[in-house]
Amino acid sequence: MKITVIGCGRWGSFITWYLDKIGHDVTLYGRSSSKHMQQFLETRSNDLLTLPESVKLVTDLKNINDSDAIVISINSQGLRNLMNELASYNLKNKIFVLCMKGIEIETGKRLSEIVTENTNESNKVAVWLGPGHVQEFYNGIPNCMVIDSDDSSVKEYLVKEFSGDLIRFYYGKDLIGNEIGAAAKNVIGIAAGMLDGLNLSSLKGALMSRGTREVARLIKAMGGNELSAYGLCHLGDYEATVFSKFSHNRTYGEMYVKGEKYDSLAEGYYTVKALVSLGKKYNVELPICNAVYDVLYNNKDPKESLDSLFSRKLKQEF
Amino acid sequence: MKITVIGCGRWGSFITWYLDKIGHDVTLYGRSSSKHMQQFLETRSNDLLTLPESVKLVTDLKNINDSDAIVISINSQGLRNLMNELASYNLKNKIFVLCMKGIEIETGKRLSEIVTENTNESNKVAVWLGPGHVQEFYNGIPNCMVIDSDDSSVKEYLVKEFSGDLIRFYYGKDLIGNEIGAAAKNVIGIAAGMLDGLNLSSLKGALMSRGTREVARLIKAMGGNELSAYGLCHLGDYEATVFSKFSHNRTYGEMYVKGEKYDSLAEGYYTVKALVSLGKKYNVELPICNAVYDVLYNNKDPKESLDSLFSRKLKQEF
Repeated sequence: MKITVIGCGRWGSFITWYLDKIGHDVTLYGRSSSKHMQQFLETRSNDLLTLPESVKLVTDLKNINDSDAIVISINSQGLRNLMNELASYNLKNKIFVLCMKGIEIETGKRLSEIVTENTNESNKVAVWLGPGHVQEFYNGIPNCMVIDSDDSSVKEYLVKEFSGDLIRFYYGKDLIGNEIGAAAKNVIGIAAGMLDGLNLSSLKGALMSRGTREVARLIKAMGGNELSAYGLCHLGDYEATVFSKFSHNRTYGEMYVKGEKYDSLAEGYYTVKALVSLGKKYNVELPICNAVYDVLYNNKDPKESLDSLFSRKLKQEF
Repeated sequence: MKITVIGCGRWGSFITWYLDKIGHDVTLYGRSSSKHMQQFLETRSNDLLTLPESVKLVTDLKNINDSDAIVISINSQGLRNLMNELASYNLKNKIFVLCMKGIEIETGKRLSEIVTENTNESNKVAVWLGPGHVQEFYNGIPNCMVIDSDDSSVKEYLVKEFSGDLIRFYYGKDLIGNEIGAAAKNVIGIAAGMLDGLNLSSLKGALMSRGTREVARLIKAMGGNELSAYGLCHLGDYEATVFSKFSHNRTYGEMYVKGEKYDSLAEGYYTVKALVSLGKKYNVELPICNAVYDVLYNNKDPKESLDSLFSRKLKQEF
């Protein structure tokens, strides 16, 4: 396949490397103002990987119509702007593949909804989600991921084209659940980091059990399959998110409660705002999301907020 | 309450310390031949904790009829023998509380079934399950656990009597699911250790997602609530089992694949045999349990067996 990857951050560049490695014709697009892109143009490398000469590097989208698929891996809140920008290229019969985890704050929309609503109806949209560390993939350590789409032929085509020894794909069957689950895992990651920072790491077991539960409730209320919260998109990503030193969201939560400086806000910072709104809209109790939101947006005390989550004594589990 | 704790290992001695701390009148029983018991009799300590003078230490059961509740924390495969031994004391109107995680190999029975079938019908049985490290509890770090019983008044009474700042109890509502889930987590712990030993730790995310799934299927087939696999008894214990250096089962799996010596077999070694039998009996596919069983009992290659679990490509997630 001819593929353009939009987004040259950690995931975008890894996906570029991976799709090239398994034999696709891949172009990586980044803005000329992007530091990451500058670094790739100068050295073909970032601090994690090196892109071979077979990958084309571009800073404009003028040839994007040559691609069969467009893989997007950018900040979720920037997706709508990107779709507006792409509108001028009159893309048709393309497959959009979203490798990103988030929910639009203003609208509470899932990312696939934003794409579908802002592109020609001949274009298809799929999501590629699940666990994995760039560092470990690059060192040959495999993982399992999931591809989902409302169009089953697109889903089957992508799983066939994108599978390799390094990534074992499962077919998703619940776009709502997979997108909400994937987005929400970043919030659980922030909560996990806060527990680590408060020396309450052993509560991460209870966090996993209660976190999956509230995400499952929300997915169900939104019309998805509650079991998706326990799939690769969410629970399956907890090793990488709740326990790994590589996790941005976990590290962000830990540094936040320790009062240490962090370079940039984590994706979960935005997602939690969207989830709290969705919880209200669908009338679903989301105690962990609410606690993280209160700490980040309302200056509540982290220890009090997190600890109180697990001290609502004498209650039913399900 | 007047309570006798039977079993002076890591958990039994912790439970003794905890129940004493929250105000109960506690006796700890261990066999006079037990090294652990000898150490408590000599120093009131093991390598993790010290029991205060208010705890009585006994090596016979002659006064067991003075207790309201009998908490049992011994090797699961020894429970039937213990119940036979207790038969001579004609216990009546007691509450048995099982703080242990396993399934009887020969019969595939849950531990609460073994107690119920081998004691006077005036006695009640409950289970006390969930995550927590003795080391961390002893240092004041709280956790959430679950108490379950088919008798709801017993469940409520125990939750009221046993709750404290250190342990926040949830009411279980599915004795089958909680017992099977708790037992099965030790097998997932062994699988996790094997992944660690094979330098495939990042597959522990997929292990969590697929492990909970097969345990959920088994619970459902046995008449329980599949969601219990995602509760404190199983998923909620993964932090302590799948990720912690303190976990016996995880450590056992890691040492096994590295070919290193280990002091004693892990509980999951027995449980996996029972689970594989239950899988056959209830016609439920248990790929992770089967892989662990094949490695431990049939000398299969760990890397091949574990890796193949996650390489069955192109399949549905649920």
